[in-house]
Amino acid sequence: MNHEDLILRDAATGFVVDAHLAPASGDIGPALAAMSAIESGSMANAHEQRQVGHYWLRAPLLAPTPEVTVQIQDALRSIRAIDATGMDTVLQIGVGGSALGPELVIDALRKPNARRFVLIDTVDPVGLTEILRSVDPKRTLVIVASKSGLTPETRTALRVVEAEFASSGACLADQAIAVTGLNSPLADLSKSWKLTLPIWDWVGGRTSVCSPVGLTAMHLCGIDIDAFIGGAAAMDEWTRTPPPNNPAALIALLWAQPGNDSLAVLPYVNGLRYLTRHLQQLVMESLGKAKDRNGRTVHRGLTVFGNKGSADQHAIIQQLADGPSGVMVHFVDVAGPITESHLMQDAADLQFALLSGTRQALAEKGRPVVSITLPDLEPASLGALIALFDRVVGFTAELWDINAYDQPGVEAGKLQSEFQLDQISDVLSALGPTGFTARELAGALGLDHQIIWRIANHLAHTGRAYLHPGSSPSEDRFSVEKNKLK
Amino acid sequence: MNHEDLILRDAATGFVVDAHLAPASGDIGPALAAMSAIESGSMANAHEQRQVGHYWLRAPLLAPTPEVTVQIQDALRSIRAIDATGMDTVLQIGVGGSALGPELVIDALRKPNARRFVLIDTVDPVGLTEILRSVDPKRTLVIVASKSGLTPETRTALRVVEAEFASSGACLADQAIAVTGLNSPLADLSKSWKLTLPIWDWVGGRTSVCSPVGLTAMHLCGIDIDAFIGGAAAMDEWTRTPPPNNPAALIALLWAQPGNDSLAVLPYVNGLRYLTRHLQQLVMESLGKAKDRNGRTVHRGLTVFGNKGSADQHAIIQQLADGPSGVMVHFVDVAGPITESHLMQDAADLQFALLSGTRQALAEKGRPVVSITLPDLEPASLGALIALFDRVVGFTAELWDINAYDQPGVEAGKLQSEFQLDQISDVLSALGPTGFTARELAGALGLDHQIIWRIANHLAHTGRAYLHPGSSPSEDRFSVEKNKLK
Repeated sequence: MNHEDLILRDAATGFVVDAHLAPASGDIGPALAAMSAIESGSMANAHEQRQVGHYWLRAPLLAPTPEVTVQIQDALRSIRAIDATGMDTVLQIGVGGSALGPELVIDALRKPNARRFVLIDTVDPVGLTEILRSVDPKRTLVIVASKSGLTPETRTALRVVEAEFASSGACLADQAIAVTGLNSPLADLSKSWKLTLPIWDWVGGRTSVCSPVGLTAMHLCGIDIDAFIGGAAAMDEWTRTPPPNNPAALIALLWAQPGNDSLAVLPYVNGLRYLTRHLQQLVMESLGKAKDRNGRTVHRGLTVFGNKGSADQHAIIQQLADGPSGVMVHFVDVAGPITESHLMQDAADLQFALLSGTRQALAEKGRPVVSITLPDLEPASLGALIALFDRVVGFTAELWDINAYDQPGVEAGKLQSEFQLDQISDVLSALGPTGFTARELAGALGLDHQIIWRIANHLAHTGRAYLHPGSSPSEDRFSVEKNKLK
Repeated sequence: MNHEDLILRDAATGFVVDAHLAPASGDIGPALAAMSAIESGSMANAHEQRQVGHYWLRAPLLAPTPEVTVQIQDALRSIRAIDATGMDTVLQIGVGGSALGPELVIDALRKPNARRFVLIDTVDPVGLTEILRSVDPKRTLVIVASKSGLTPETRTALRVVEAEFASSGACLADQAIAVTGLNSPLADLSKSWKLTLPIWDWVGGRTSVCSPVGLTAMHLCGIDIDAFIGGAAAMDEWTRTPPPNNPAALIALLWAQPGNDSLAVLPYVNGLRYLTRHLQQLVMESLGKAKDRNGRTVHRGLTVFGNKGSADQHAIIQQLADGPSGVMVHFVDVAGPITESHLMQDAADLQFALLSGTRQALAEKGRPVVSITLPDLEPASLGALIALFDRVVGFTAELWDINAYDQPGVEAGKLQSEFQLDQISDVLSALGPTGFTARELAGALGLDHQIIWRIANHLAHTGRAYLHPGSSPSEDRFSVEKNKLK
């Protein structure tokens, strides 16, 4: 494999993928076959006993049954039929894939006169207040996206938004759309709402941007969703071909090499400023796994970082050049633009030279580099870019023999968070007027004293308890607020 | 060292630093002494023969000479005296430290009714056009920040902004402030401008936020800069104390442990959404080094990533829990808020539980975790937070015996970028009417054919050349546009 062969070009997508790599070991053949089985409806997510069907979203006729094809087509029709007259803002409540994909796409593609897109993806109380201050409920369409319908941040944020609507005399039900799984609690709740759209159990959150989770807000913000999913389908098509003309296979073989443990993604396009965040979820949640499919402990993963070039030039390039090995670099840019302005042409030339010069310098340092050049920043191209990385992740998981579609490691954090949330009221009730240390409270409640200290401290800082500082935190005493000791 | 001892609290800053760590090996004593020498004006950046003086910016009386004290105080006075009547927007042109610090601070602290802050930190032509469309030159104060005065992106963006001002009848010189080094070309250029402020050679870009590079825009956007630098000074003060009550020493000993090669920073505060980007530059440019101070090859570095909790929960926690070892996790949050609203209290409780539960789960997986809790998100606290990480980086560099204050690895990329920028016109002139391949052009120009292909492709995509696609890129032919072959 010489360097010349590593410039790949595709007429349908207009993409150029230009790599400078050592020849990779590994046979992509079985991964291509496995991906083909996934697309045909195999039970790829064995752990959760689910099919993996995000590829069908972009080409409904590929779905394994006519019923699924019809469900996808019906959902698209429902989205296109939404009447949003009088609405100038789309507020989406969602976390993870229900936030990161739509955020990337709408930030990149929204036209200046389209509806505003506002996202609630945390329950930071100050942040919530600020976001709600910026919208007029009477002119805001709300999308609530949660597959299970139980995501605690989404539920809590929805209650806050409901209250805001009520206090300004707007009717949330008339202006709210749920995107959720069949028979989920949110599906039940949303029966009186404007619309309920499906998210199927064969779509993972991190690949849901081509489902109603992403498409609804995109459509309402004036983005051509048919072009978007068409672009993704064209990339799926390209990346079904055997090597060498398969960029997803090329990149997956690179990712899967032992020692390649981190990936800098540098989009030299301001409009792709959220690309890396989307990829962080896609890649790290899919490939960060303790066990392979045979239950062997492998602790795989790939750390993704980067923001936007050329700004990254002044932030991370020093370490990419001189720091530890194991880092790969992917450049992303958009061809052009054609401009009459000499000043803008100079800017384009400088932007090109910054990317290409940095690439050359890092290649000379021995870093594996891949440049991905989009023909433009339009819906079809961004759909294709997202699909390209979906496929790279799918192939890499096959090369590593891991399940890219579950997330067993998040369970422990969820349970701990639920547990501690429950403990807040227990700790509050256990506080007396005289003040206890965390260790005393821990004994009384049968809990870890450090967690108790943090909960009691949180109660003090939110005005529900009183902290009497000791000479060290272990001597801090906490009491109910009404009976301050001082 | 038991866990109890790892909760550190400081009355002056109001910070709590709460760590769950294995006891670290290493003696911080020499690092404390070295940091003290730096603060006294030692030639800490030996490679560039420069002192490292960003600590003096927060406590001018600590500067090694009265002249430096006066220079800092004069600059602060000049900033406070700026008359910005009639201006509703502050547009800063700068890259690296001239962008990331101000962006973080102003996004976090700007009040709703203050002047808008707009940043140009790349030369993406489409991005530039979009930014300029959003400002009214007649009401925009421009800050151009470049220590050398030669930063190519800054110079190019300034020319674009100048043209925009001229075309709308605004006088840039009357509305522009330069922040630059003594006798730099920008200092010369800005003689006719509203004001020129200094940036001293003893301030590195990545620690310049407490200099006029950061303070000018902050002040113009209504942020209390005295409180900000006061908070930073208080953190400097706290982190001069010997262990165990020194959070910067504690964290530096963790960072410096062998095998700790990446760091997830998760601020559970929407207002700190840009913290990680600032830290990426601070940490990766400072600690990503090929050689130690004795010239030994060490390839040190620390990869920083993360965005904002709890959104990160759904993006990267799977890999943090189950992926490769070597990752440390820092949580950042703000105490409170005290609120009368039960809904907002629920949101605060959930936000707390998500942080604390995730922390507990990751600690149980063996990840080193550190929580940093700010008393509030006000100027003094954010100044202190930035200073804390400045100090951690300083200590870590001493533990590793590397120069944290130079950036030798970026030179090669700069030179390559300059070279390729120069080649654009050479390639353009070499194109004939009949069309050449990249290899033919490379022979004629004595250059690498892959670089030539990329340059010619860029010329084609920007409308200055014509691409006649071959069956593979090596057979592509490029000609001058007027004489299309097809």
